[in-house]
This record gives sequence, C-alpha cells and structure tokens, in this order.
Amino acid sequence: MFEAVELGRKVSKEDYKKHEPEIRTQLLDVQGQIKEANLPVIIIVSGVEGAGKGEVVNRLNEWLDTRGIQTHAFWDATDEEGERPYFWRFWRKMPPRGTVGIMFGSWYTHPIIDRVFEKITDTELEAGLNRIIELEQMLTRDGALIVKFWFHLSKDDQAKRLRDDDKKFKRKKGESLEQQFAKHYDSFAQVSESAIRQTDNGKSQWHLIEASDKYYRDLTVGRVLIDAVRKRLSENESPSEPISNSLPPEFESAAVTILDQVDLSEELSRKEYKKQLKKYQDLLGKLTWHAKNKKRSSVAVFEGWDAAGKGGAIRRITASIDARLYRTISVAAPSDEELAQHYLWRFWRHIPRAGYVTLYDRSWYGRVLVERIEGFAKDHEWMRSYQEINSFEEQLCTHGTVINKFWIHISPEEQLKRFKERENVAWKQYKITDEDWRNREKWDAYKEAVSEMVTRTSTAGSRWHMIAGNDKKVARIQILKTLCQSLEEVLD
Amino acid sequence: MFEAVELGRKVSKEDYKKHEPEIRTQLLDVQGQIKEANLPVIIIVSGVEGAGKGEVVNRLNEWLDTRGIQTHAFWDATDEEGERPYFWRFWRKMPPRGTVGIMFGSWYTHPIIDRVFEKITDTELEAGLNRIIELEQMLTRDGALIVKFWFHLSKDDQAKRLRDDDKKFKRKKGESLEQQFAKHYDSFAQVSESAIRQTDNGKSQWHLIEASDKYYRDLTVGRVLIDAVRKRLSENESPSEPISNSLPPEFESAAVTILDQVDLSEELSRKEYKKQLKKYQDLLGKLTWHAKNKKRSSVAVFEGWDAAGKGGAIRRITASIDARLYRTISVAAPSDEELAQHYLWRFWRHIPRAGYVTLYDRSWYGRVLVERIEGFAKDHEWMRSYQEINSFEEQLCTHGTVINKFWIHISPEEQLKRFKERENVAWKQYKITDEDWRNREKWDAYKEAVSEMVTRTSTAGSRWHMIAGNDKKVARIQILKTLCQSLEEVLD
Repeated sequence: MFEAVELGRKVSKEDYKKHEPEIRTQLLDVQGQIKEANLPVIIIVSGVEGAGKGEVVNRLNEWLDTRGIQTHAFWDATDEEGERPYFWRFWRKMPPRGTVGIMFGSWYTHPIIDRVFEKITDTELEAGLNRIIELEQMLTRDGALIVKFWFHLSKDDQAKRLRDDDKKFKRKKGESLEQQFAKHYDSFAQVSESAIRQTDNGKSQWHLIEASDKYYRDLTVGRVLIDAVRKRLSENESPSEPISNSLPPEFESAAVTILDQVDLSEELSRKEYKKQLKKYQDLLGKLTWHAKNKKRSSVAVFEGWDAAGKGGAIRRITASIDARLYRTISVAAPSDEELAQHYLWRFWRHIPRAGYVTLYDRSWYGRVLVERIEGFAKDHEWMRSYQEINSFEEQLCTHGTVINKFWIHISPEEQLKRFKERENVAWKQYKITDEDWRNREKWDAYKEAVSEMVTRTSTAGSRWHMIAGNDKKVARIQILKTLCQSLEEVLD
Repeated sequence: MFEAVELGRKVSKEDYKKHEPEIRTQLLDVQGQIKEANLPVIIIVSGVEGAGKGEVVNRLNEWLDTRGIQTHAFWDATDEEGERPYFWRFWRKMPPRGTVGIMFGSWYTHPIIDRVFEKITDTELEAGLNRIIELEQMLTRDGALIVKFWFHLSKDDQAKRLRDDDKKFKRKKGESLEQQFAKHYDSFAQVSESAIRQTDNGKSQWHLIEASDKYYRDLTVGRVLIDAVRKRLSENESPSEPISNSLPPEFESAAVTILDQVDLSEELSRKEYKKQLKKYQDLLGKLTWHAKNKKRSSVAVFEGWDAAGKGGAIRRITASIDARLYRTISVAAPSDEELAQHYLWRFWRHIPRAGYVTLYDRSWYGRVLVERIEGFAKDHEWMRSYQEINSFEEQLCTHGTVINKFWIHISPEEQLKRFKERENVAWKQYKITDEDWRNREKWDAYKEAVSEMVTRTSTAGSRWHMIAGNDKKVARIQILKTLCQSLEEVLD
C-alpha cells in the first residue's frame, strides 16, 4: 500500500506560493460552512516519525480561523486518563458541533505502537481496531465528519529526515532518532498498513499522503480537507442509512415480557429488613473501601418506573459508602455543551476514576426509553444506540469496572398508590409532576421498550437486574446484596 | 471559641422524628427557590475527625432533591490537579448557578493540616487564608451563597468516637485512629480556631456546630441552611455594596496614557526580520522543551486593537513550539455552562498542566475592555475584576507559571489601512466585520480602558508588555524575544 505513495511527488516553492492563497480562501469558506451546518469535524494527523505531522498541525492552525478549531495532542496520558478506559481521553477532547478538532496522535497510536513493540498480539490489535471502527461509526452516524491523514516517508527519506534532526539537536549516538526508528521502520510499516486497511471505509476515510516534500504535503492536506467537507455537506442532511438492527419478531406482539416474570408479591418484615439492611450496608461500606484500595471502579445504573423507589434505594447505598468514594449523577436535561456532542459524551464525562463509585440516577438508557417513547430521538438513532451502549459498557468492563444495572419494577396499581401519597406528603410533593401522570398513560409502550432494552443490553459483564419494587424493603435489600456480591466476586 | 459549643446539646430521637419532616419540606422549598433565583450555593463541610461529616453529607443528600446538588470530596488530588495552582481543583467543581455544591473537604483542609503538621509557618498559613478570603469574596460578590459548617467535638468525645470506630474496624494498636488524633487534637483545635476566626465574615459565615449528638447536629444543619438561603434571597437582588476601588484622579482626564509612550515608528528590514525570526523561533522551540522537562508552565495573553496582528504573532510562536506542548485558546462567547459560573471559571478551565504552554487569543481582560466599554458588565463588576484578575494571576505565579501579557498597539491610521486591506484580500475577509468598524469609533474609550488595565494589572510576576505593532515584524520579534527571555530567566 505504501509503495503506491512513494512517488517523489513535489510542488515547487513558486507553485506553492501561487496556490496557497486559493487553498486558504477555500478553507476559510469551508470553515464557515462547517459552523453554519453545525458539523463536527475530526481531523486525525498520523503517520511515520519525521513526516512533519507537527508542521501540518501548525499549517492548519495558520490557514484556518483559530476561533473554530482546537488542537489536541495525545501522547503523555495523565493519571486521570490512565485510570479510565482508553477512549475517555478522546471523548473529553471531542470537538463540539460546528467546530474542527485536530487530533495530533489519536486512538490509532496506542494499538499500532503496542503491536510494533509486541506488547499486544495480532488478535488484540484486531480487537483494538474493531473498537476504533465502532467509535468512528458512532461518531459519523451522529453526523461527524472524520478526515484521517497518514503521512508517509520511504525508509530512506525517514532516515535522512531524522539524521538532519539529530544533527540539529546535537544528539549523541545513544540518543539518535535515526537509529531508533530505522530498527522499527519495517514492522511499523507493516502494522500500520494493516491498521489502515482495516479501518478505511467510506464514512471515515484514510488519506495517505507522501510527506517527503512539504509543499506537496501541505497543499494536499488543504485540498483533501476542502473536498471532504464539501462532499459531506452536499450529501443528504439526515443520514439515510437503513436501520441495521430491526426488531426481532418476538417483540412485535405484546406477548409476555421479562417484566411479567418479576414476582411482585415478595415482602419483607420490618424486622428482617432492618437486620439485613445493616448487614449489607456494613458489608458494602467495607467492600467499597477494599475496592478503592484495589483500584476497582464501580458503576451502578438505576432505571425504573416513576415512583419505583430509585432515589430511596440510592440513598440506602450512599448511606453505607464513605462519602469520599461515591458520586451520584442525576441525569437531567443536557447543557448546550452536552448537546453539541454525541449523546454518550455526557456520560463518559462522569466515568469514575480507579477505585471510585458512580451511581447514575437514570442514565444513557434514556435514549431507548424516554427519548424513544417521546420521539426525542429518531428511530434510527435510538435503534443504533443499543450497539453503542453495549460498546460503551464493554469498554468499562474491559477496563475492570464493575457494572450493575437495575430496573426497579412495580405494578401500575402500586404506582398509582405512590403518586397519590406523593401528592399528600409535603416533602414528597416535589417528586410528582404532570409529566409523571402523562408517562403513566404510556405504560404499555414503556413496557415494550424496557423489555427490548433488557434483552439487547444485558450482557455477561454488564447485567440487568430486575428488581421487584412493590415492597421497597425487598428492592433495597436485593440491590444492596447484588452490589455486594458483584464486588466480592471481583475482589477475591 | 470551641468551648462555647461544648454544651452537650442534644435532641431526642422522638423530637428528631417530629421535626425532621418539617425541615425536609422547608429544605425542598428552599431548593426550589435556589433554582428559581439562579443562586449558586456552596456548602462547606469541615471539622474535627470523628464528628460525622460524612453522615452530614449523606443526610443532606437524603433531604434534598438530588437533581439539584452535587457532592465533591477533596482529599486525594490527582496529578492533573497537582500540576496546577491549588484552587484549580475547586474551580473545576464549582456548582453552576441554581444548584447546590456540597464540598466535603474544602480549600480550608490543606492550609490547616499543613500548619498542624508544621509543613508551613504561621505567615504562610495567613497567606493561604487570605487567598481563601479573596476567593470567597469573589464568589459571593458574583452572587454565590457560601455556607460554612464546622463540626466540633470535645477532646473526650472525639476519643470516644474514634475508639468505637477502631473497634468496629478491628484496628491494631499501630493503626488506631484514637491514638493518632489524640496527639494532634490541641494543635488542630488551635490552628482551626484561628483559621475560622480569620475567615468568618458577614458574606460567608462559619457555623460552628456541636457534633456529639447526631440528631442535634443534623437538625441544626438543616435549619442553618434554610435560614441562610432565605436570608440571602430576601436581600437586595443586586449586590449593593459600594465600589471599593474608585478611579484614581489621574485617569479622569484624558491625559497622556501609557499607549502614547509606545514608539510606533520602529521598523525592521525584511532581511533582519528573517534572521531574528529564525534565531528566536529556534530558541523558543528549545526553551519550551526545556520548560516541559522542568515542568514549568507558561501562559501568554494576547490583547490588542482589532487588526493589531495578534493572530499573526501567535502563529509565529506556535510555529516554533512542538505542537504537543502548546494550546491556543481563542476566547469567544461563553457557553451556557460557562455563563452559569463566575466569569473567571472559563479561564481556570484551560490552565495548562505542568510544563505546557497556553496561549490566550484575547483573555480574561475582556472583562475590563469590551465588557466595560459595551456595558456587558456592570460598573461594580468590571471594577472589582482588577483585583480578581490580580489574585488569579498571582496564584499562577506562585505556582511557578511564567506569565506574559502583550498589548499590541497600533495607530488608528495603521488600523484603517489594515481594515481596508482585509476587505480586499479574499482569505482575510473573514477577519473584518461590522463590529470592528463600530469598535473603531470607540477608540478613545478603549484607550482609557487599556491604560487603566495596564496600570492596575501589571505586576512584578505578571507584566504587561506594550508592543509597537505598526510594523508587524517589529512586534513579532519583540514578542518572541520577550517570551524567550522570560523562560530563560526561570530556567537557569
């Protein structure tokens, strides 16, 4: 693949000077369109050492209006980054809609370098690349344009560049970049070639650019970028791709769902409740400290019918955990910074550091529940989000995070009883709104959505626990017990 | 001071049960008002070990609607936090307007503990406390309500609590908390007492609460909080405090300003420019790497007349620095997350990690320039911001950050020439807007504002450099040279 770009392409200084103003003008024009169309643009700058990636980054900063771009270098991860799944560092730097993010170093760097230095196997590399494909797909489906540049130098050209660089910085023999990189040129080329091939597709294309001549290199970058944005903007506004995951037939009828199987008749005596509450709260308190010391993070997601008792259950948990170790995220309407990003961005934001606990009072599942039912998300949006959510949670799992997801189930009769109680108790009134009454009318639609959600997103590493909630005591104990068990399993 | 709260105050369980619903209802009511009034509320939870601070945090989480509160524990700083000035960790967790932030551990912890363990002197403690006073003043003037709780236990009560705790966790002799804290009780009490005394004032009051009885403690917390919010909301909406820093008389006349002293006639030949440009760019490239290795951060602020050449100067700098080491922040309209915070919050956000460079294309000085001239900030707001800015920059300085501030000056005639050129060159057209022409009409007002800004905010550690910009070449070399010199000074 690379030999096809080792052509010795050149542009003279004169030609460069002649064409630069035009490229520049068009780029600025295109940037205006990006802003107007609210298009998020991700530019990935990668390639061999010595190809002048930094120069390209500077050139783009020179040509474009800096007010609409941000440059992010990914090279020395902070401990906050190291304590979270690999992609967190990229999510936190994603460009908002209408702006351009230049990624200098990117999600490709780690897998490729790790493979070159044989820290990972071919299979692991492939798994890493599949993650990348998923991420890019997620972003492009959400409307992002990803332009990926790979800057190539032949072996000889690289040696020459690095030699010059060694001279300039007066590097001694042991420090010579030329020697360091010469050793790995071939394996780097081989691994990158395979990575590029596997991750090149219509929606996020690679552009291989010969980098031996800086004038050719930079003008080409400009042109590719202009074309890519124009092409993207001339396409259909809304992604027209067909919905890939159609509903399986068993959900088309309103037959028995997983919710019908929850035994709502269970009860617990006050006395037994108090006894068990103390037992599991004490245990959870110890286990979360233990997890802190072992750097094991936990995420617990609480979903359920209105008035199912999510808040009460969460408080029984937080009462048992040292207040320094947990954080509760109540999911409310997104801010404008959140709206300018992929919908998962605002959940990535709050992923706990190693050893900490995050409790989500409602969660990313809103996408396939309220957003689905209320039509806030289009059909193809919420449908594809099952896969996106699974991928997100799998990354947490792989990172070692303990995930528990609770659906607290109650009967419609119990809900009605609680709604009425809320209206009558002064400090509960804030909990009941007209919206709750409206949601109640959509019980069947929610039931179907919940059932599908559980089926599609309950995985080995990230299980849904269906909690019988008609007796709050039963639900709380069940949740505490589940959390304790899942921590015990991994901490042994 | 503390003996005054060692009174053995108690509330019986029955009384607690009787009063709790009322407190709870009022708290929720008050929380609704907080939201409606867009009031940011900061609750500081501090006090002696064993007083049940974590329990109080949990209680507040139980009583309040969790959707409007966030709890932040400050105990184990991450390296991202350690690499920035002390207050950065708090700024990043400030509650947005209309919400409550519970600070478990706070800006008080470090100075007090450091003094107890004799890591700092009394003078350093006082300096630390003065910083805190400034911060709190800044926040309250911006409309925030700060409620500070100090939970106290007598020496005996603490010993008893920790003994129970030791038993519960089966701690061995060497690990006993009781013994650890008994040793430091007196010095801790003494240092905290003095800290509390120094930082207690009408606008951000301390509430000392006896913590030996949990019912009394929690009910009191609830009541204090309710009262504090109600009191705050009943006060005048807009802070009516008089403007403390009135203009010194010399600025009332439009006499000679510092801008008139800039020699705009300087010129540089093309040849000499190229020579010097190369020299200083190479030097800056090396110095920034050197600074990275020595973990010295830099901040450079670029302000100047429209078309003064800020962008061009910045690009000459970025072209010389490794693209991984710098970040350019173009200051544009704030997002809604930014608007929900003190105006300095969005600048704190981008403070560089140790060893990195942040270039601000326009900056926090917008407050005393455009916001002043256009009336976006009220008089008392922009006037007090000189002090806030000085305090902010002083923190950067103290942390070891190299700060350079450039005002690029040009004559009105030169500006006119450049405006016209911008209108005629295709890729420069995006740079000129109607607003630029309107700003031009306010030249004299800006001149006065700039002059005052420089006078009030040019300090030893954070100097303003007045740059002659009529010849762009002169300006660029001057800026590069200044940056090199300031780095050389600290890196020696």
